[in-house]
Amino acid sequence: MLYEISQRAMELESEGKKIIKLNVGDPDQPTPKEIIEAAFEAMKQGKTKYSFYAGEKTLREKLANIHNVSAENVVVIPGSKWAFFSIMYLLLKKIGNVVIPSPHWTAYEIAAKSLGVETRFYRTEIGSNWKIDPEKLRNLIDEQTQLLILSNPNNPTSKVVENRILEEIVEVANEKKVAIVSDEVYRDLSFVRTKSIRDFGDNHILVNSFSKTFAMTGWRIGYVVAGEELAGKMVKLNQITFTNVPVFVQEAALKALEMRQRIIKEMSELYRRRADLACKVLSKTGLRFTRPDAPFYVFPKYDQLDSERFAFDLLDKGVAVTPGTSFGDYREHFRIALTMPEEEMKLGLEIICEALQ
Amino acid sequence: MLYEISQRAMELESEGKKIIKLNVGDPDQPTPKEIIEAAFEAMKQGKTKYSFYAGEKTLREKLANIHNVSAENVVVIPGSKWAFFSIMYLLLKKIGNVVIPSPHWTAYEIAAKSLGVETRFYRTEIGSNWKIDPEKLRNLIDEQTQLLILSNPNNPTSKVVENRILEEIVEVANEKKVAIVSDEVYRDLSFVRTKSIRDFGDNHILVNSFSKTFAMTGWRIGYVVAGEELAGKMVKLNQITFTNVPVFVQEAALKALEMRQRIIKEMSELYRRRADLACKVLSKTGLRFTRPDAPFYVFPKYDQLDSERFAFDLLDKGVAVTPGTSFGDYREHFRIALTMPEEEMKLGLEIICEALQ
Repeated sequence: MLYEISQRAMELESEGKKIIKLNVGDPDQPTPKEIIEAAFEAMKQGKTKYSFYAGEKTLREKLANIHNVSAENVVVIPGSKWAFFSIMYLLLKKIGNVVIPSPHWTAYEIAAKSLGVETRFYRTEIGSNWKIDPEKLRNLIDEQTQLLILSNPNNPTSKVVENRILEEIVEVANEKKVAIVSDEVYRDLSFVRTKSIRDFGDNHILVNSFSKTFAMTGWRIGYVVAGEELAGKMVKLNQITFTNVPVFVQEAALKALEMRQRIIKEMSELYRRRADLACKVLSKTGLRFTRPDAPFYVFPKYDQLDSERFAFDLLDKGVAVTPGTSFGDYREHFRIALTMPEEEMKLGLEIICEALQ
Repeated sequence: MLYEISQRAMELESEGKKIIKLNVGDPDQPTPKEIIEAAFEAMKQGKTKYSFYAGEKTLREKLANIHNVSAENVVVIPGSKWAFFSIMYLLLKKIGNVVIPSPHWTAYEIAAKSLGVETRFYRTEIGSNWKIDPEKLRNLIDEQTQLLILSNPNNPTSKVVENRILEEIVEVANEKKVAIVSDEVYRDLSFVRTKSIRDFGDNHILVNSFSKTFAMTGWRIGYVVAGEELAGKMVKLNQITFTNVPVFVQEAALKALEMRQRIIKEMSELYRRRADLACKVLSKTGLRFTRPDAPFYVFPKYDQLDSERFAFDLLDKGVAVTPGTSFGDYREHFRIALTMPEEEMKLGLEIICEALQ
């Protein structure tokens, strides 16, 4: 449903309709101009040829440095989504299952379905502040479980997993010999500090992206930090699928990393302001929601709501949101992305509140 | 072996060694500057966001126009390689087999292997001018055969399939209800006119790329023309893997299409001159080869040659070629790519001739 709403909203826009898009985690800010210029320079220098399947050495080294690993552990990929498809493709292929705390990003589920991989969802609740109970998670893991996909900070709830709970989850995974794939694409901009999965040793897999932190969604560049064996397999899969992320895109990413501290500071402040504003507007209604620990989302609940119908009706009113059913069994919820300028976002939120009267 | 030689040559280069790279089909010409500027303009206009999984409407329409189909039949992908992986992923998945005339591009075979798809090669020979005998091809097709992958013009032989033979191959495929996936990435620059698979109706699949024609290898953009059902499935697979080819890359491709006639004329003349020169130099040796109908390759045979050893030894002499074993059971052959400026190419060819004395 996430993708249907998204494509429909884009179609309406291309027909000239004005849509306040609170449905996608696609930052409204332009990609910083220094990053664009770095790509242009690279193109002019002829960095428009085939290159290393794993990614450029300089970029891999810089990322390795950030994550305190070796460059051999880093694989550059066309966006974080590729990580979930390719890791499941490489490690599961119709054998075994994947455990996923829910609500969850729909891409995990659709990729698993396409690959014929069984998914087991562990349901968390707004009532308990979306907390994961590691013991209950353990009960879902069996002999066939190969992976645990964790979204931290979570999309759509914007909650981070507390360090103490994360430690317990890692203990469960280690004991059960299950690899955690940790989707940390919102972590750099998080308002609440949280540990990375790589702080817990080499058994687990980190997935990150330039999309959110640097407003580079459409550049299609992300990376994986993994053990050398899996990294090697991913490089071979790159080779037979998309060859390499364009080198000029990688040069743009390298420039982004140079500006990392400044951009992280600016962007996380911006999203914190927006989150505060959204909470203020939404609290005037009968909606229940938890305060975001991170960008970009709020995932409110409205009793008895059919969020799919609500989302389509809302689209007619010029506002796009994503129904909760896109993130698991959460029909009474919907996801609001805070990825519009404040004035427009506020207007969109008010239209939402009005529609719920 | 193609990829090992290629990565090794790049490593040697990054260590500062001078390598005459006659191993990869990566044009030495820079991407035309108008194309680079179109990408830069698009970036500055904010075309750096998520977009349609199928590709931009304007680009799909322009391509549809060229191929005399509807835009719904066109799917934009990150290079032609993606087409072979994704079509086999979608249509085969461990059921059925693929028939491939050989010598063949190694990517078809590795993708099939990764997917667990059985491959059946139909061997063609230099002695019969690489001709395909449609009746012999028919004998390889059985009830389990789902696809026939045709490379026309062929990589590595640079021969085109004669129209009369192509007609017969299509007849066989239609009769056996097998879809032909026709890799036509060298067709625009072909010296000899040849029909496209789309001239034979809607049952078959065309794969094309901007890489070769427009010197855009590293941009990672190609497309497929297919029936609406397969096109729809490919769009869904795009959605869960790489999302979309960057819009600014698609804008660059659109600019390339505007300049299409001029670039095709210039590039095919350039490669024809190089092919003539290569034939002249190589004919002084004991090598057997067929005159290329198309860029970029010559695929000579030297009796008793172990081309893998030869290729690695040659790399020490500063010249990279690809052993024939990369394209099937052709150990006595090797592939020379005419993708270096004439002086360097000539020097490289002379080093090859000398090494064979």
